[in-house]
Amino acid sequence: MAVVDPIADMLTRIRNAHLALQKEVVVPRSKAKKAIAEILQEQGYVLSVTEGERELTLTLKYVGRKPAISGLKRKSRCGLRQYVGVDEIPQVQNGLGICVLSTSKGIVDGEKAKQMHVGGELMCEIW
Amino acid sequence: MAVVDPIADMLTRIRNAHLALQKEVVVPRSKAKKAIAEILQEQGYVLSVTEGERELTLTLKYVGRKPAISGLKRKSRCGLRQYVGVDEIPQVQNGLGICVLSTSKGIVDGEKAKQMHVGGELMCEIW
Repeated sequence: MAVVDPIADMLTRIRNAHLALQKEVVVPRSKAKKAIAEILQEQGYVLSVTEGERELTLTLKYVGRKPAISGLKRKSRCGLRQYVGVDEIPQVQNGLGICVLSTSKGIVDGEKAKQMHVGGELMCEIW
Repeated sequence: MAVVDPIADMLTRIRNAHLALQKEVVVPRSKAKKAIAEILQEQGYVLSVTEGERELTLTLKYVGRKPAISGLKRKSRCGLRQYVGVDEIPQVQNGLGICVLSTSKGIVDGEKAKQMHVGGELMCEIW
């Protein structure tokens, strides 16, 4: 069956892989998912991202046996889009987490969006 | 004033430094604290431990801005010692955390104590 929301599917795969203490997780490749994966790497939530022909492989990160990612939440959904202005970009977990926005200047994390003075579609939160 | 429980003091300093998102934390040096600090480093909870003449400096670790250490708990106290046999070594946070034991074979984490088939004084839990 076709996946209705590929971003939500990616977050779920990461969540499940972490729960099973797996080293890697593979997701079907797309531009948006690649951008999110690269933000996760930049921010230190995953060790590496490698690109295959049709898939992305994320190498998960652990602190001892504890997953580096404590939680992932899909925000804007197909059925209920969420857009935020630059002043409404949320703080995630009192500033300890990040959010990912799809803006007119590409897919970026909340801090970068603030620096660039753009709002956008609130894709997900990671902490 | 003299510190009544130096181990509890160390855990508190780490907790406070993490809350303030500090890079480093300095604690007065002792053999026991050095052993705990080295276990924290081995298990990936702190980046490095450096030894001064009278102090230890722990370089704290973050995932994004999120502290690598989610919690620290002093177990055995001066007023209420806690000893565990090898079969009673606790699982911390469903196996995602660690405990530190003072055994007849030195200060080690719970997994190592199990491998060595020794119990001991349950010093603290970290997750």
